[in-house]
Amino acid sequence: MSIFIQNVFLRGKNTNVYAENNRITYIGGETRKADICIDGSNKAIFPTLVNGHTHAAMSLFRGYGDDMPLQEWLSQKIWPAEAKLTQEDVYWGTKLACLEMIKSGTTLFNDMYWHFHGTARAVEEMGLRAVVCSVFIDFFQESKASSQQKESETLYAESRQYSSRIQFGLGPHALYTVSGKSLSWIKEFAMDKNLLIHFHLSETQQEIEECLKAHNMLPVEYLDSLNFLCPLLVACHAVYVEDKELDILKNNKVSLVHNPTSNLKLGGGKIFRYPQIKDRNIPFCVGTDGCASNNNLSMLEAMKFAALLQKWAHRDTTLLSAQEIWETATEKAHRIFHVDAGKIEVGKLADFMLVDKKHILMIPDHNTISNLVYSASPGVIDTVVCDGKILMEKGKVDGEEEIIAKASEVAKRIAFSGTTL
Amino acid sequence: MSIFIQNVFLRGKNTNVYAENNRITYIGGETRKADICIDGSNKAIFPTLVNGHTHAAMSLFRGYGDDMPLQEWLSQKIWPAEAKLTQEDVYWGTKLACLEMIKSGTTLFNDMYWHFHGTARAVEEMGLRAVVCSVFIDFFQESKASSQQKESETLYAESRQYSSRIQFGLGPHALYTVSGKSLSWIKEFAMDKNLLIHFHLSETQQEIEECLKAHNMLPVEYLDSLNFLCPLLVACHAVYVEDKELDILKNNKVSLVHNPTSNLKLGGGKIFRYPQIKDRNIPFCVGTDGCASNNNLSMLEAMKFAALLQKWAHRDTTLLSAQEIWETATEKAHRIFHVDAGKIEVGKLADFMLVDKKHILMIPDHNTISNLVYSASPGVIDTVVCDGKILMEKGKVDGEEEIIAKASEVAKRIAFSGTTL
Repeated sequence: MSIFIQNVFLRGKNTNVYAENNRITYIGGETRKADICIDGSNKAIFPTLVNGHTHAAMSLFRGYGDDMPLQEWLSQKIWPAEAKLTQEDVYWGTKLACLEMIKSGTTLFNDMYWHFHGTARAVEEMGLRAVVCSVFIDFFQESKASSQQKESETLYAESRQYSSRIQFGLGPHALYTVSGKSLSWIKEFAMDKNLLIHFHLSETQQEIEECLKAHNMLPVEYLDSLNFLCPLLVACHAVYVEDKELDILKNNKVSLVHNPTSNLKLGGGKIFRYPQIKDRNIPFCVGTDGCASNNNLSMLEAMKFAALLQKWAHRDTTLLSAQEIWETATEKAHRIFHVDAGKIEVGKLADFMLVDKKHILMIPDHNTISNLVYSASPGVIDTVVCDGKILMEKGKVDGEEEIIAKASEVAKRIAFSGTTL
Repeated sequence: MSIFIQNVFLRGKNTNVYAENNRITYIGGETRKADICIDGSNKAIFPTLVNGHTHAAMSLFRGYGDDMPLQEWLSQKIWPAEAKLTQEDVYWGTKLACLEMIKSGTTLFNDMYWHFHGTARAVEEMGLRAVVCSVFIDFFQESKASSQQKESETLYAESRQYSSRIQFGLGPHALYTVSGKSLSWIKEFAMDKNLLIHFHLSETQQEIEECLKAHNMLPVEYLDSLNFLCPLLVACHAVYVEDKELDILKNNKVSLVHNPTSNLKLGGGKIFRYPQIKDRNIPFCVGTDGCASNNNLSMLEAMKFAALLQKWAHRDTTLLSAQEIWETATEKAHRIFHVDAGKIEVGKLADFMLVDKKHILMIPDHNTISNLVYSASPGVIDTVVCDGKILMEKGKVDGEEEIIAKASEVAKRIAFSGTTL
């Protein structure tokens, strides 16, 4: 399988890009024969985006119980609906999410949810990449901990049936839902098998207060005391972290995921500590979180929220520039998830997109990256390629009508409510 | 001219909507003959959005000098480029802005810029509505004040050549660029002719400090001392206002425009004081500001920024709900600008849009308004009607290729720079 893209805009000039099997093998003026030829005129080629934290199947809950008090929303809306979800529901919910991510230029995401195989099957069929992390929650009960550990081992073994696009990851939910003993077990298992760990860290004030009460330590200090911190850990949110905790995260080579839209919608009151995190050179990327708390999966939008919030909070218009957030969401994010993509270069995986340079949100073209970060919405993306295969061409994805119909059916059934307005 | 929309989703059920000349004249189950019939299946009908504050022609500066220190950006990038603009450039820049607004469901905007006729002609041809306000700046010089007053009188007289879709408005820039004497003249002229006044108020800390130094009063107190405040005044930003200033604004029936994205991008550090403004029942709406400080004109995005910022800042997930921000940006905003639209009701002006209920960002359909506010991007909008005429159908606007080509040319010329990446 080979793809030849002719006359496409890359780093300031027009060129040709050739991908063979799943890697970019040539960039330059020559013409190459290929199975698929794409006219790149009026298009720019860019690496695809990485969604650093989501719960894909929760796309089924887009707009379900918005604007409610947090606990009421969870207990009356989300948890009862989640309790009804089958693996097949998760499969369709994840397909809906994958479709939206493809359309907004994302081809790699870090997921945490129930029904591992529902998610993995959907990703496999849709052609993206994902770190699929099975939720691990033991509520501090020995028997639950033991069954969750067994499940992790089983799912890890079973995950090998999928292609290399799917990485099995461990998904300990948070320190208020997983015992210290289980966290230690997870760290050992992860190190033994080289698996990424996906974790919610210091998202709310309540979490900090409870941790201080229970352990007389801040969350990061507590996790450090368990020897849980390691380079395989990807900690999401981390808005309520103190300087001394950032030092510990830095020393243990932990990566962070900033979810600006979700932090706003869930009423956090704190902001990702970008200047302090950049000072320490702690790796971080950006995520959307699930659709229930965002309510979309657009990394284009998430980049804008992230970049603008920092300028505003620190009264500095130069902070977290378009170029920097772009590199964070592409090259640096791929590195965090151990995927050799994120740059249009010979030798890199063929994960890229073609952007319509004549789309109104890209006009005028003073700065294409600025336009992508601060102006664009999903409609600017014309073509998406992942692992050397075309997932979207001219804005169309195979089978999208069926996905929309099936996911709508599932959402209606689990919510016990039709359209409200 | 009549339009019949059959089988369209409105307030929970499917119905038909009929518009004759420029008003909605029938909603119900009957079929009507019309010049134009539109199949509303899988579409929902909504009032179009109002952009409460923009500088439309600045769309030419989208992505031009982002992430620079504020003063450097203005003095090295924006002002030199603006100095080159001709009326024809403003015409094409405004056409670009109108095209983007139509595509994102906005049919009424409140504008402030140079070259009044460039803006007015563009709006006239594109079919939207606008309050077109000519910038008034005298830099405290008598001669400038006098020529600006004459220009306002001339433009007001000349503005009568345009259709009723175009309202002439007065655009005193801000209290640090317009003398007190001119502000008093503007107020009198506005009251005499019943014209809206478009003003930047308390956007930055520097503005407050300078006002205190010069007048020993806060900005609103100073404006009140000039007798400038009145129900025709639409004051934009108002992020640095104290409680006692809000009381004065309330007593004088001033309206406010919140521009969340611009406030963030320009590094303001303060947030629109929604709870205090709501408490006082001060009318307000939402705007995008110009493309140089946003960088798009999507009211869909602006609503999301506005609603989420309030939840975050006040740690209350129930604040400024989707329903409330939606009404603010439609019905309430039309009222501020004296346009009898903003609701799908018999008797109202035929300004409305059809939203694609099968667009991925509208799936599932637990709550259509939530989806519009928190999930949607411009691609969800299929058809736009203003003043009883179709401006967009199936996502296409007449002449869009020419607008994109011409505006790109103008932008390239005035910026002395090609594409940078």
